[in-house]
Amino acid sequence: MNHLSLYGTSLALLTDLYQLTMAQGYWKQGMTKTDAIFHLNFRKPPFGGGYAVAAGLKTAVDYMLKYEFQPDDIEYLEGLRADDDEPLFDPEFLKFLGEMKFSCSVDAMPEGSIVFGHEPMLRIEGPLIQCQLLETALLNIINFQTLIATKAARVCLAAEGEPVLEFGLRRAQGIDGGMAASRAAFIGGCSATSNVLAGKLFGIPVKGTHAHSWIMSFDSEIEAFRAYAEAMPNNVVFLVDTYDTIEGVKNAIIVGDEMKKLGHKAAGIRLDSGDLAWLSIQARKMLDEAGFEDTAIVASNSLNERTIRSLKEQGATIGVWGVGTHLATGWDHPALGGVYKLSAVRAEGGEWKPKIKVSEQRVKISNPGRIQVRRFWRNEPSRFGGKGEFIGDMIYDEFMGEPQTNIIVDPLDSTRRKQLEGSGSDLLKPIFRDGEFVGEEHVKDDLYEIQEHARYMLSYFDDSIKRFEYPHQYPAGLEKSLHDLKTKLIIEARGFEDDTSTTW
Amino acid sequence: MNHLSLYGTSLALLTDLYQLTMAQGYWKQGMTKTDAIFHLNFRKPPFGGGYAVAAGLKTAVDYMLKYEFQPDDIEYLEGLRADDDEPLFDPEFLKFLGEMKFSCSVDAMPEGSIVFGHEPMLRIEGPLIQCQLLETALLNIINFQTLIATKAARVCLAAEGEPVLEFGLRRAQGIDGGMAASRAAFIGGCSATSNVLAGKLFGIPVKGTHAHSWIMSFDSEIEAFRAYAEAMPNNVVFLVDTYDTIEGVKNAIIVGDEMKKLGHKAAGIRLDSGDLAWLSIQARKMLDEAGFEDTAIVASNSLNERTIRSLKEQGATIGVWGVGTHLATGWDHPALGGVYKLSAVRAEGGEWKPKIKVSEQRVKISNPGRIQVRRFWRNEPSRFGGKGEFIGDMIYDEFMGEPQTNIIVDPLDSTRRKQLEGSGSDLLKPIFRDGEFVGEEHVKDDLYEIQEHARYMLSYFDDSIKRFEYPHQYPAGLEKSLHDLKTKLIIEARGFEDDTSTTW
Repeated sequence: MNHLSLYGTSLALLTDLYQLTMAQGYWKQGMTKTDAIFHLNFRKPPFGGGYAVAAGLKTAVDYMLKYEFQPDDIEYLEGLRADDDEPLFDPEFLKFLGEMKFSCSVDAMPEGSIVFGHEPMLRIEGPLIQCQLLETALLNIINFQTLIATKAARVCLAAEGEPVLEFGLRRAQGIDGGMAASRAAFIGGCSATSNVLAGKLFGIPVKGTHAHSWIMSFDSEIEAFRAYAEAMPNNVVFLVDTYDTIEGVKNAIIVGDEMKKLGHKAAGIRLDSGDLAWLSIQARKMLDEAGFEDTAIVASNSLNERTIRSLKEQGATIGVWGVGTHLATGWDHPALGGVYKLSAVRAEGGEWKPKIKVSEQRVKISNPGRIQVRRFWRNEPSRFGGKGEFIGDMIYDEFMGEPQTNIIVDPLDSTRRKQLEGSGSDLLKPIFRDGEFVGEEHVKDDLYEIQEHARYMLSYFDDSIKRFEYPHQYPAGLEKSLHDLKTKLIIEARGFEDDTSTTW
Repeated sequence: MNHLSLYGTSLALLTDLYQLTMAQGYWKQGMTKTDAIFHLNFRKPPFGGGYAVAAGLKTAVDYMLKYEFQPDDIEYLEGLRADDDEPLFDPEFLKFLGEMKFSCSVDAMPEGSIVFGHEPMLRIEGPLIQCQLLETALLNIINFQTLIATKAARVCLAAEGEPVLEFGLRRAQGIDGGMAASRAAFIGGCSATSNVLAGKLFGIPVKGTHAHSWIMSFDSEIEAFRAYAEAMPNNVVFLVDTYDTIEGVKNAIIVGDEMKKLGHKAAGIRLDSGDLAWLSIQARKMLDEAGFEDTAIVASNSLNERTIRSLKEQGATIGVWGVGTHLATGWDHPALGGVYKLSAVRAEGGEWKPKIKVSEQRVKISNPGRIQVRRFWRNEPSRFGGKGEFIGDMIYDEFMGEPQTNIIVDPLDSTRRKQLEGSGSDLLKPIFRDGEFVGEEHVKDDLYEIQEHARYMLSYFDDSIKRFEYPHQYPAGLEKSLHDLKTKLIIEARGFEDDTSTTW
């Protein structure tokens, strides 16, 4: 079952109104056969980090596979009025929309790819109108899942291989905010989710303990523990902080001993408030002294990559990390700033023209052409061992054929350049050709496989790049000929003929 | 069409696994007829502010109306395994789940109500198992919509009555993150959304301009403006910053003059980058001098309540505010910390027992009983004028009957007390009685009505309470008898018999 089958309605209208008014504009201008190329990329990785983990492609593919305006969508659009109270849309245009079939070609980074600023995660080429109409949904889907997969990768790095459980549903941003977050968090490295519907739809393992209300429903904590051990003897993690954590650990040990006599086992205790470092150290001592060396300590309570790292530095003896709000919302950076920019246009029967959006902010200037990303390595990284390492990414323009040089230029500082030696491979893979799905090899259903891909890819980048803040900047730059073309187009767009001057 | 009809699947599994394992635990303990009362509240308003705007009730009601486990939900649960690889759930329990009918009583604050910390927005009373199973979805729905309605109210206060358009879909947290955000933003005061599906499903007005890609699809900006004016003469807002903003304004004026001659009108220009204060002042001058005094300046680009206020202080001449990412994600506080706490339990045939969750953090200690909130006023606030003002809220326990005193006690500092004089009315309204929907009067379909309710309610609170940061604290406290009961229960839970000592 895929993600979008959650929705019983057509999602063609999941777009911004201006996409539809522009589509009508192109239609009125007779531009229905004008083709375009758009790229989806972010400029800066989120959370102050150095990279992102691409996610959301499968959802986006499902969206495009089902992309079609339904009669009730058209009916709604018929009823919209412009400023002068006349219908906003022409009936003939709506007929065109109703009959439109998705016919674009799409290339994308497979989910779980490691991606850097300015690198397209998705490229779409086809009728300008279709590319435009799809913008909003593609951004919505890929921005969010990439954000959360990235957050999860950071949290899992902090946990140093210990299991991280995603517990965010209750604080997630709406129903799909929760569903998509569970999916993306698993891609980024989480072991399980508490979200049962995500378990059902995506095949993610589901995990859980019990709540304070369980304890409070009984006359005393020890009575509640006994009832839980009796009800679910094979799935016991005692929540020990409802009244007093240390007393709670004592009660857990008493009931744990009773369970042992019956041949059962207390799998763990959970701390959900108070000083997790101090409490976990005390609890570990108490458990060990009572012979519960393999009873795990699970912790939750506003955890994130920084608190986990700090708890580890303080010697906390936590073995399982329950991470909710900060993971499911990307708390400290709750939106990936992904953009979707036009890079080339071809009128019917004409040639491709590269396009660029200029901005007073250099970081917002888009790249022209049909962009591909080539990643270079030293000693080929291999899932089967080896000491490979990625050394740099080249963003190049396929319109120029194979890369013209092996020099990359920093997109934000043209004086920073690097020569990339060795082999490389292209990261954008074919997903659709003229509306036909051709991405079987690159769009996976199996989230375990995607998770493994992300984990293994990440392992071939230097640790300095994975630092939580002020990371070493991985070299990902424009191939020099593309840089030169871009510079020329910017200067022209700003009304100068050559590069003897700048403008501001 | 309601919000949840978006989903083609049962949402009964939209819950945390532990709700289901606890439900099985209660079932095994023979507690299927044990009743409970839970309350949903937050502790601190979001964004450093002083209040929140309640939202999401309609969605939550739709969820409860459809609450039912489907055969494929049960089938999924049958397949889950515990630590010992035995089935996690007992087939008899799953049969019980499959036959369960929602039978709770629910009271809630209508959407658009102004709510303060520790005040329940929703109270649910009924079988402990049902109350527990519903926790996660209710929190998910109400936390997020309340968060965004509150953000929207703040942004709209900053805009001082000028229209605010919600443009957040592309950066929202997943599909429903976008849909629910559009709904909640309208409740909080936005005039329109760019999200067309939200227009279709919720009846929110939809608005939009055009994108940079429109301009870039033509050979020059002026050509693109002309094409747009021709295509949509009754809906023209020119985006002027694709290449150079000042040149863009000049081109907009040229095409605006051409439109005038044809009897049309340029409704506005839009600024989307650069220094919005300076550019808007320049653009206003240029437009006015050219006779376009009533052409509006629309601005967008990472706006929020603080940037809008600052732009206004700098004399920006912006008349319409397009707010996206910060609004749709609640950027600086992306989750409302709503909790759902058990406050009383009644065994079959027994009496209600008040319950409390103690915590080392005082703010996390819940309130016992069956809680209601009474809001007191001076001169009755009235939609039809009048100088009414709300003066304080009393959180009281209906188990004690009518409030015993007119004294409220600050939940976080028992030495701060206030006597409330005058009339009051109760904020929690009946929504369900024993599973039957009785909330027609309080659960509105019409978002305009809800928006108006929020706006008018907010107008009766002192401005100091609505300050963006460090607001004056509105008096919302525990009725003294409830405070005394709570204090007694905390001290008992901490193992002391009277209040001669404290414990830490």
